[in-house]
Amino acid sequence: MITLYTWTTPNGRKPTIMLEELGIAYTIKTVNIQKDEQFAPEFLAISPNNKIPAIVDDEAEGGPMSLFESAAILIYLAEKHQRFLAPSGPQRYKALEWLSWQIGGLGPMLGQLGFFEVSSKEKSALASKRYREESERLLNVMEKQLSSSPYLAGDAYSIADIAAYPWVVAAGDRLKAVLGDKLAASPALQAWLTRVGERPAVQRGMALPKV
Amino acid sequence: MITLYTWTTPNGRKPTIMLEELGIAYTIKTVNIQKDEQFAPEFLAISPNNKIPAIVDDEAEGGPMSLFESAAILIYLAEKHQRFLAPSGPQRYKALEWLSWQIGGLGPMLGQLGFFEVSSKEKSALASKRYREESERLLNVMEKQLSSSPYLAGDAYSIADIAAYPWVVAAGDRLKAVLGDKLAASPALQAWLTRVGERPAVQRGMALPKV
Repeated sequence: MITLYTWTTPNGRKPTIMLEELGIAYTIKTVNIQKDEQFAPEFLAISPNNKIPAIVDDEAEGGPMSLFESAAILIYLAEKHQRFLAPSGPQRYKALEWLSWQIGGLGPMLGQLGFFEVSSKEKSALASKRYREESERLLNVMEKQLSSSPYLAGDAYSIADIAAYPWVVAAGDRLKAVLGDKLAASPALQAWLTRVGERPAVQRGMALPKV
Repeated sequence: MITLYTWTTPNGRKPTIMLEELGIAYTIKTVNIQKDEQFAPEFLAISPNNKIPAIVDDEAEGGPMSLFESAAILIYLAEKHQRFLAPSGPQRYKALEWLSWQIGGLGPMLGQLGFFEVSSKEKSALASKRYREESERLLNVMEKQLSSSPYLAGDAYSIADIAAYPWVVAAGDRLKAVLGDKLAASPALQAWLTRVGERPAVQRGMALPKV
């Protein structure tokens, strides 16, 4: 059985969506980052980078295995269950390409924008400008990609979409004042949000963890 | 044959190290980001996110394939040549875990610190503090991990080390004024820098592209 350590953030909802899509049994343990529970020694033993999400699979090949980093968790679950990531060929690497783009680009940049626009009481016009422009650039890249294919990696829904969806939802919610206009002017992105958001497993995953 | 589009940056040197480690034939095309060559239409057709590195493999399964994002390129080459990434089991997922940690954490945070400390003429004390603290935290995580194993993912040198090495070298070079003391006080990290840096392929890869 998989135990998922997570919280109600975009990164935390990637594995809830994935596990709901797979329809396998799993247990959630909440790690309340507003109460600094990610620094508890028992969590650090699983996730030494003190970030959610993390999983423990007590039925992994070779014995119980813990894993942190949302992208590694998505690849692990996709390969274990042979779903949402092709085993070889261009479809596989296009999915890994856009998954990498999300975890190395879209996620960090939206995260920084959220810090300077929402979380931090102190402000920096320089930083706000930098992350607003970079976020808009990345949303343009996504809009262009989704103008030519229904999903990020092409014709098939993949772990790249699962990774990006909660971040784009958060961009239109927590960062609506900054990015709302850009999102509204991105028809392919809007169609993708509807297409992905209509999936029952995505709806269930986005409502987790219950806190 | 692989054609690699790259430049003399940490991300740009991940694939040069990997290709040198594999010892396969490849061609380099430089993309001078100081001259905005990453915005040229012929490069954007390969890398729509306008970032280096990118590759084209004209002998890929199913026909010529282009790929951007350094992590996707490393995974692709590792799987094609069955080196530096175990095909299954915990070794595989620990390597993907630390690869993800590098591209989603260490890389973006050192990159932001470089912008506010070195690249930008305008400064922000708030942003500098944020990225200095986060970079030091990440280097602490790496030091702790390397205190218990010779490589990031355990006993075996992997694509996680290839991804992290040029970034840690850059942290000690371009960001020496900010991070030099932290790096000097990290003996396991220093031993890893020596261990990885002694590899002839790493030395060759770090000297590329020639410009």
